[in-house]
This record gives sequence, structure tokens and C-alpha cells, in this order.
Amino acid sequence: MRKYAILAPGQFADNAKTAHGVIGYSTDETVAVVDPDYAGRTVSEVVPYLDSSAPIVATVSDALQYDPTSLLIGTAPQGGKLPPEWRAEILRAIEGGLEIVSGLHDMLADDSEFADAARRHSVTIWDVRKPPDIPLFSGAAYDVKAPILLAVGNDCAVGKMTVILELARAARDTGMRAEFVPTGQTGIMIAGWGIAVDRVISDFATGACEQLVLEAARRDPQYILVEGQGAINHPAYAPVTLALLYGCAPDALLLVADVKRTHIETYGTPILSYSGLITAHENLCGLLKPAAAVGVALNTHGLDASQAAEEIARAREETSLPADDVVRNGPGALWKAVAPKLVKRHPLSTRVVA
Amino acid sequence: MRKYAILAPGQFADNAKTAHGVIGYSTDETVAVVDPDYAGRTVSEVVPYLDSSAPIVATVSDALQYDPTSLLIGTAPQGGKLPPEWRAEILRAIEGGLEIVSGLHDMLADDSEFADAARRHSVTIWDVRKPPDIPLFSGAAYDVKAPILLAVGNDCAVGKMTVILELARAARDTGMRAEFVPTGQTGIMIAGWGIAVDRVISDFATGACEQLVLEAARRDPQYILVEGQGAINHPAYAPVTLALLYGCAPDALLLVADVKRTHIETYGTPILSYSGLITAHENLCGLLKPAAAVGVALNTHGLDASQAAEEIARAREETSLPADDVVRNGPGALWKAVAPKLVKRHPLSTRVVA
Repeated sequence: MRKYAILAPGQFADNAKTAHGVIGYSTDETVAVVDPDYAGRTVSEVVPYLDSSAPIVATVSDALQYDPTSLLIGTAPQGGKLPPEWRAEILRAIEGGLEIVSGLHDMLADDSEFADAARRHSVTIWDVRKPPDIPLFSGAAYDVKAPILLAVGNDCAVGKMTVILELARAARDTGMRAEFVPTGQTGIMIAGWGIAVDRVISDFATGACEQLVLEAARRDPQYILVEGQGAINHPAYAPVTLALLYGCAPDALLLVADVKRTHIETYGTPILSYSGLITAHENLCGLLKPAAAVGVALNTHGLDASQAAEEIARAREETSLPADDVVRNGPGALWKAVAPKLVKRHPLSTRVVA
Repeated sequence: MRKYAILAPGQFADNAKTAHGVIGYSTDETVAVVDPDYAGRTVSEVVPYLDSSAPIVATVSDALQYDPTSLLIGTAPQGGKLPPEWRAEILRAIEGGLEIVSGLHDMLADDSEFADAARRHSVTIWDVRKPPDIPLFSGAAYDVKAPILLAVGNDCAVGKMTVILELARAARDTGMRAEFVPTGQTGIMIAGWGIAVDRVISDFATGACEQLVLEAARRDPQYILVEGQGAINHPAYAPVTLALLYGCAPDALLLVADVKRTHIETYGTPILSYSGLITAHENLCGLLKPAAAVGVALNTHGLDASQAAEEIARAREETSLPADDVVRNGPGALWKAVAPKLVKRHPLSTRVVA
């Protein structure tokens, strides 16, 4: 079991989805967060939906008094580059004997300054995003017995991972064996396994997705619930979304949408309507292995109760599908509505590469 | 100027599209091909559409008498792995003082046996597929002034690169400045620049495509003609196809189809109809920056003249677009029909990342 100090200077409140995901869902404990902007307060005082009294401190040096085993890089910046001003804090953690856990594209273990320091202080660096050797997509995913549900979204960072984690919990609460499949760095940190598909060489991205589904299948689940990535109309990340759509061979799709989003973040591309999103994804799946949208999970964060209820009703009406906010209302009702729709579907070709 | 010996043992006739592309279109000379199955014959005797009298020999040792400067790996196997039985031939070439030019995913310069040998014999290894450092997609491609045409196909290896090279030639023959944009290893070997998009980390694949279009734009062309990759319903490679569709920001699409293909090679997924392909691609482009299909280039290799004419007529009827086989009939007519349709189109968002 790890005990985390989480590094998120200046970003913990609003721009640290890795930190929030690990605090909210990992079985590893978070003992401190490093963010000078909120030093002296606790996690739940700054992010009320996180049930944690861990202290926020100004520096890594301050965090050491809480006996962390590991420093976790708590943000996922666009492009995955290490902010240069964080180098000193990471070196301080290594000097303090902490393991470094990073989901950045920049591989910290390949950085000679970090690597040398880690050797000197006998600490390890876990670059979560570093992919293993991955074979090409083979079609073996088509033979997985358990129904596969994949989350798709109206943008990045709208809550796809959270929704899938909540549904997996709801499934387990009703005595079902549901396997959460991590496809990004935060999911991997939470589950302790997985592949960051966005880091995989493009030719092998579908193969990586297939390997994830096959690994989940080896755990003999009744349902396989896959964390989604990106968005199908995201100018930069859509190829990763398509890799999941094809490589995970889903039987069903769950649409996850932030109701306040009007444009793709940073890029300004207009968001698609719920029905437009469903059509775009179902059309693509229909080229290889049909999959049907079975529900809508809304992120109504920031709305009041009656506004949220209105948004949920509007989504139900537009899509004729079960819809809910699983963070606001709990995942039980949506899971109960969606689970009976999770049935196996057949690919257009069952021929598997030898 | 390089003089190539091309390594394609047992594969030169039917499975060596890299070799055929370089022999047909590179300004570098091919002085010999290594394939024991056809030793003693010439290139054009085995592959009649290639206008080359270069000898085919059994081994790299035999090829050395023709004074090559470089050994080019002449095939692009699925997954890009080096066939182990080729190691000895590559080492022989290094011992013979030849530069090694490879488009495999396996990076030969990172192989300690090859690297040691190359150092000992003072030869270089050019891994064509090794990507440079690539930024995220920014939207700068939307500001390129020249119209951008992208080839899309009904499968891999149907002739997309050849069609684009032929159209670029036709454009230049009529006094227009058309820039060929290489997106895969053979195109890079032919043009001497480019990025193998299939080798790029998934998050950066759209960024790589954008960089290619920006590099082409710096050469001040009237038209930018982009070699396509993969197929939108290819189970393994579709994410690369989508990266080109989004990252190259095309204004127009050219459908390239092998008329004999009924299923995606290896995987057995049914091929889409011409109109189905056009709809699938136009729908995706419509999510970010609309692009219209402007023509169909058919690969009618193996058909007789009247069968080929029938296929071309059928494609015209089904799509209401200009259609031709540019290898069989020359590229002039199709280019003349397509060029007036190459006009700039606007993205849904013109906001570019700062």
C-alpha cells in the first residue's frame, strides 16, 4: 500500500483531475497535497465532493512530516510536459526517499537528473504512461464472453472515468462481478494496472485496447466496464477515442456529457448534441462491430437540484435512454437501468488474425 | 544521391510495396534487388509496370558488385517487425560498407548488434519511421492557404501513395506547383522528408499530420496533395486514418479503391461501397472542418481493358464524381477534372491554440 503526497502546485482546486481521481477512488491513501495556494486547508475544504481530511501544504518538504511513501504528480497538463518549475520539488521528494509516480508523457525515469538522483537515494520512478510491448490488434477481443461497456464523452475531462468507476461500484454493490478497465494514467494509478492508450504508438493503439479487454476477461467478470478517452470530435485526441471504439470491441456505449460544455476545451470546436454524439459513435462501431448507446451519464456539477433534474429529463427525452448524474444521485439507479441492456453483439467479421 | 540495393527475399513480386514505390518514384537509383526466388531476372521482368532493368540477385553479397551505397529494407510487414532470417543479410550489408535504410517499426539503430556493427564499419542506419519531437495539434493547419487534398482508401495497400504521386506529377506537368506530402515510410524514402504517422504516439498523431501540412505550406505550393494511410474501417489502423482526416485539415478527399478488394486484408472486415466510404469520411470531417470527396481513383490492376472501363463507369455512376485509373490511363484526365474542385473550406472553429 502506498501513502501518497500529491504534487499539484497552483492547480489542486480546478485543474488536477489525476489528484481528484486518486483521492476519490484509489485504495491507496493520500496523506498530503502540495499546493501553496491552499496551504493550511484540507482536501475537502477545497474540493467539497472529496471526502478527505488530508492536509494541503506549501512544499514537498512540508509534506514529508506526514510520512508519504510516494510523490504522485497530480495533474495531466495538455501534451503531458513536466512544468519546469516542478523539477526542484520532485528532486526534493527523491532526496526524501519517496517513490515518484508520474502519468506525464515526459518519462521521468529517462531524465538523467531524476534518474541519477533516484539511483543515489535508492528510490524508484514509476512512469505510469510508459507502455509495455504491445501486439497489433488481432480480433481476439471479439471472443470475450462478458459484455463490454465503453464510456464515450462530449469532450475530454467531463467525468468518463468517474462514471465508469461509480457504475463498477454499483455493480459490485448488487453482487455482480464488474471489472473496471483503466485506459489512462489516473485510472492506472487507481486500479494498479492498465495501459495509457494515448501514449501508445498509433499503429498499436487498437492492439493496446484489445490487450486491456483481454486482461479484464482473464479476471472472469460478468461485465467489463471501460474508461473512455478523448472525444470523437476532439481535434487532437479523437484518434485515441477511435482506438478504444474499435480495439475494445464494445457491445454497448455509455454517453458521458458535461451539460455546461458548449465547445471542446482549448480548441473551440462546437460540442455535439447527445443524439449527434450517439449517431457519430454508433455509425463508426457499425463499420466493424455494432454497439448501441444504452444510457447517458450527465455531469451536472455546479447546477442546483432543479436545474440538474431538468437537464437529466432533457437528456432522457432527446435520447429515449436512461439518464442520470451518478455523482449527484448515486450510480445505483443508472446501473439498474443499463445492466439489462448489456448483451453480447457480433462483429461483421469473426475472422481472427492467426 | 543514393544507389540502392533493395532487400526483399521471397517477397519482391507480390509483397514489397516499399520496394516498388522507391523503384517507381524515387529520384534515387535502384541498382539491384535481393530476392533468391527471382535471382537472374530483372525488375521489369518480374514486375512489368516498373520500368527498370536492375538485376535481381540471391544475396546481399551478390548485390555488392553493382556498387550500391545503401541497403533499403523493401517490405512493410504487418506490425513492422524485422523477419529474423534477414539479420545476417543486413549485417553483411553493414560489413560491405552500405548505409541501412529501414521503414520498420523495429528501430534498427537501437538494435545493439546492428549498432555495434555500424560503428565498427562507419556506416549509418536511417530508421525512416523514427519520429521527431512533435507538438500537439494546434489548429495552425486551418490557416494554410493552398487547398489540401487527402487520399482515403477502401483498405491499406490499394495504391493511395501512387495515386497522389501521379497526380502531383500531372499537376507539375501542367505548370502547377503541387507538393506531395509523405505520411508513411515509403513516401518518406521517395520524397526525402516526412513523418511516418503510424509510428507517432497516439496523442501526437494529429499534431504530426499538422506539422506535415505546415512543412508543405512553407514550400509555397498551389496545391498540397497528401498521401493517405490505412482505412476508416480497418480494425487495426483506422486511428491513423482519422489522425490524417483531422490533423491534415483537408479541403477535399480523393477516394482510392482497389476494385478487386472485397474484405479488409488479413482481418476479413467487409469493404465499404464507394458511397459508403464517402459518407463515412465526409461525416467525420464534418465534425471539425467539412471536406468533400472530389474524385475516385481506381486500382484496376489485373483486369482487362474493357473490365477496367466498366469499373470506372460504375464508380462514376455510383458517386457522380470523376473517376479513373491513373496508372492504367495516366493521371492527366483525373487531375484536370479534380483540380477545379480544390477550393479552401473553413473549420467549424477558427480558434487556434496559443
